[in-house]
Amino acid sequence: MNGAESIIKTLIGGGVNTCFMNPGTSEIHFVSALDSVREMRSVLCLFEGVATGCADGYARVTGKPAAALLHLGPGLGNGIANLHNAKKAYTPMVNLVGQHATSHLEYDAPLTADIEGLARPVSHWVRTTQNSATAAADAAAAIVAARTPPGQIATLILPSDANWDSANGPVSTPSPPKPSPASPERISAVAKLLRRRENTVLLMGDPVMRDEKLIGMASRIAKSSGARLIGNWYGSRVSRGAGRPVFERLNYGVDQSIRILRGTRHLVLVGAREPVGFFAYPNKPSLLAPPDARIHHLVDVHEDIPAALEALAEALGAFSFSPDLAPLQRPALPTGDLSPETIWTTLAALMPENAIVSDEAISAGRMAGPLTQTAPPHDWLHVTGGSIGQGLPVATGAAIGHPDRQVIVMEGDGSGMYTLQSLWTQARESLNVLTVILANRSYRILHNEMKNLCGKEAGPRSSPMMSLDDPDLDWVALSQGMGVPAKRVATLEAFIDAFRRGIEEPGPYLIEAVI
Amino acid sequence: MNGAESIIKTLIGGGVNTCFMNPGTSEIHFVSALDSVREMRSVLCLFEGVATGCADGYARVTGKPAAALLHLGPGLGNGIANLHNAKKAYTPMVNLVGQHATSHLEYDAPLTADIEGLARPVSHWVRTTQNSATAAADAAAAIVAARTPPGQIATLILPSDANWDSANGPVSTPSPPKPSPASPERISAVAKLLRRRENTVLLMGDPVMRDEKLIGMASRIAKSSGARLIGNWYGSRVSRGAGRPVFERLNYGVDQSIRILRGTRHLVLVGAREPVGFFAYPNKPSLLAPPDARIHHLVDVHEDIPAALEALAEALGAFSFSPDLAPLQRPALPTGDLSPETIWTTLAALMPENAIVSDEAISAGRMAGPLTQTAPPHDWLHVTGGSIGQGLPVATGAAIGHPDRQVIVMEGDGSGMYTLQSLWTQARESLNVLTVILANRSYRILHNEMKNLCGKEAGPRSSPMMSLDDPDLDWVALSQGMGVPAKRVATLEAFIDAFRRGIEEPGPYLIEAVI
Repeated sequence: MNGAESIIKTLIGGGVNTCFMNPGTSEIHFVSALDSVREMRSVLCLFEGVATGCADGYARVTGKPAAALLHLGPGLGNGIANLHNAKKAYTPMVNLVGQHATSHLEYDAPLTADIEGLARPVSHWVRTTQNSATAAADAAAAIVAARTPPGQIATLILPSDANWDSANGPVSTPSPPKPSPASPERISAVAKLLRRRENTVLLMGDPVMRDEKLIGMASRIAKSSGARLIGNWYGSRVSRGAGRPVFERLNYGVDQSIRILRGTRHLVLVGAREPVGFFAYPNKPSLLAPPDARIHHLVDVHEDIPAALEALAEALGAFSFSPDLAPLQRPALPTGDLSPETIWTTLAALMPENAIVSDEAISAGRMAGPLTQTAPPHDWLHVTGGSIGQGLPVATGAAIGHPDRQVIVMEGDGSGMYTLQSLWTQARESLNVLTVILANRSYRILHNEMKNLCGKEAGPRSSPMMSLDDPDLDWVALSQGMGVPAKRVATLEAFIDAFRRGIEEPGPYLIEAVI
Repeated sequence: MNGAESIIKTLIGGGVNTCFMNPGTSEIHFVSALDSVREMRSVLCLFEGVATGCADGYARVTGKPAAALLHLGPGLGNGIANLHNAKKAYTPMVNLVGQHATSHLEYDAPLTADIEGLARPVSHWVRTTQNSATAAADAAAAIVAARTPPGQIATLILPSDANWDSANGPVSTPSPPKPSPASPERISAVAKLLRRRENTVLLMGDPVMRDEKLIGMASRIAKSSGARLIGNWYGSRVSRGAGRPVFERLNYGVDQSIRILRGTRHLVLVGAREPVGFFAYPNKPSLLAPPDARIHHLVDVHEDIPAALEALAEALGAFSFSPDLAPLQRPALPTGDLSPETIWTTLAALMPENAIVSDEAISAGRMAGPLTQTAPPHDWLHVTGGSIGQGLPVATGAAIGHPDRQVIVMEGDGSGMYTLQSLWTQARESLNVLTVILANRSYRILHNEMKNLCGKEAGPRSSPMMSLDDPDLDWVALSQGMGVPAKRVATLEAFIDAFRRGIEEPGPYLIEAVI
């Protein structure tokens, strides 16, 4: 057995059985080992940013880490944007990066780069394997690191000789550490605070919004104490729709979020960070809560959130309250023009139960939340780190993780172009992914932000830097070029027909909705 | 005047008048300033890896730095692979990266990342502007850093408040430092060595191969002393073709390069590093020169190469020798099957004078050198850092830099997929770029390397990880989807017709050559 085989066997033993890859020569023994260790499901991606985005999406919907396999420093570089999003999503991931053979490094060959240096800003844990004898143990340590609560990016750099030299065999992976308990003092202080009923907000962070049981406990606590329940505006996976607890959400817009939080005297953070603006604006605050609001940390993301919520609910007698659940209220199919509003309404009217929505609609997605709140239960995946080019690959990985569920991508035309290679993997793997490109033929959000920030419309030299209409992108051609059937629609009727077809037929489908 | 305007005016004053960009909200004042400072040519790219590759290509053919404008850490991440190639090419580049406003950084908003940490591995010089008052001086310092011989990547991180706050105005850019002189002792030691005529090789590095005058001097020196003249196998821009000095080349294959250097007693490095294998292989050496060969450093890349060559030529009386120049000998148009060999022969038969060839043909490009040696004079751009996804954007930037010259990209289908968004910029800017996709429907080089390294053919689970044929990519659809007319050809006759059309008609064109 060589090092590569020992690594793959260790990954399989540790529950990491899916690997999204774009390999090169330095990873060739790893690829070859797939023929002898057959339990690993390997998925080829035609660009590394697709591979890391897929691994993120897979873990978001399964809760289990996938592996990514990338080719040296530049391959890691191509994967960085979606590693950034995954890191901000607390996604567990085993990120394997090939490296030159150890003896070759001193010669600074063309592909040599400071891989550890590139990895650190987007990883919680970085290690370079020393040789094939330690490779399996390093892989096990990477799995433990990835699974350390709330989920981490573990980057393991694999010199090619650690793959090709002989090894002793796989090692078993120890259990990851349990989350540390939240401080009982903080819990009772928050309980005391909530009993005072003084304009208090419970702000839920990402790990809470993933899980309808946790949202439900938070909702009971809020109801028992008259507090408002609010979720951050983005989350790695938000459990929502009919039968699930409802809650307010913060917003991309700084002014809107400040308005939502106005009057708050106490902000209780539940697995959340203090809410901040996505960007800074001159003459606007960075912090969204009122300046005189007091901030209380109930439990942070590294701590045991379920236990903290349960203890708080017990202390408040909140289990006798029922959370407000969203009713099932599909809207009627809309009529009128094709617009973001009618597109989201169509989604709410037609989406199947347990759908997964990968939302990178950016400026066209603002009204999505209220319009889909009473649709059948679903999971909503946001761009957690603000790095566009996530929507398509995260959806692709999610569909690998849950082939039984319909995945729907709501994607801007500008952001879709970053990682359009995802479509090929969807075609190759026959994934149930329906992609809706909301084609406004611009980086619309930048046109908006220029008005916000510069107080004026774009001029003749700046406007083309935010516009995609010269020439128009033909998303039907792009999609078909990668094997995904596609249709362009310019009317609502045609959109509804195409949407039905995308849901009803198996395999991937793309709709270019010209808005 | 705000900081952004002061930066752009400083760039213009310092000779940096072209900016390849993919901006975001944090760069919006920079974009807005394009309306008031109109001398900057700005080119939108739909992915940051295209922007950095374009800036690389522009500088390779013009010798002048361009700017790239990227959006925070993830935008920089997307640009890293081609920054890596540019760094290995000694390309001068002013790499501008947006950042949150300084006051916003402490709050760790979603897009916050360690930008300096990401930049350092791919930059020679990294600075974060402190405020709008220093921004112009920082831009000038970045230009000096970029122009410091032999050319550097200067990354300047621009917090958005440094763009939007008011500034005093542009500053003028000092001259870059001159290269330090090579040691006269080394020059006379090499002169003495060459007079002994003991199986000596002059190995030319990248900066020498760019310039036919420097190659000519090296060729005279070699002829005067009976030494062999060899160039490294990759170069940022290699001056070659009819009327230019001929020289041997090293090769991607370790065995072939070792064979080329066999019998060498003295290896004289002329702006070159000691030659090493591109990858390491078990049981093969990393160093390509014979173990008993002595290495002599004539002049390194940071030193004054023209002066060193001139001094050496004087010392040897080499100016009375003439370099061997390639004759103009276009091959006849080939007949037979469509294959890499007939494709390269067609290129040699039809390429116009002063063409720029961006070569990322990878496995299909092995025989390109000899087949094009006697074509009309041209410049050849290689993948300098081994990071694929360079061919299309470097060609795009080269065409912006030299709109009067025909640019021809010889591109693998696998590597082309990394940065295919380049085609849209070619269409928007009506660039004279002819792209030939050598579509072998696989990462052929990996299939070859698996045989080399693992001693076996790919099996049923590894082979799909290196194959692009399930489904086939339709490059004609992909190209047309971005506005570049295209044709698929499967016969040599059709290829020749399409190639002629690509050369004769203005604007971009793509040929998918199925081989």
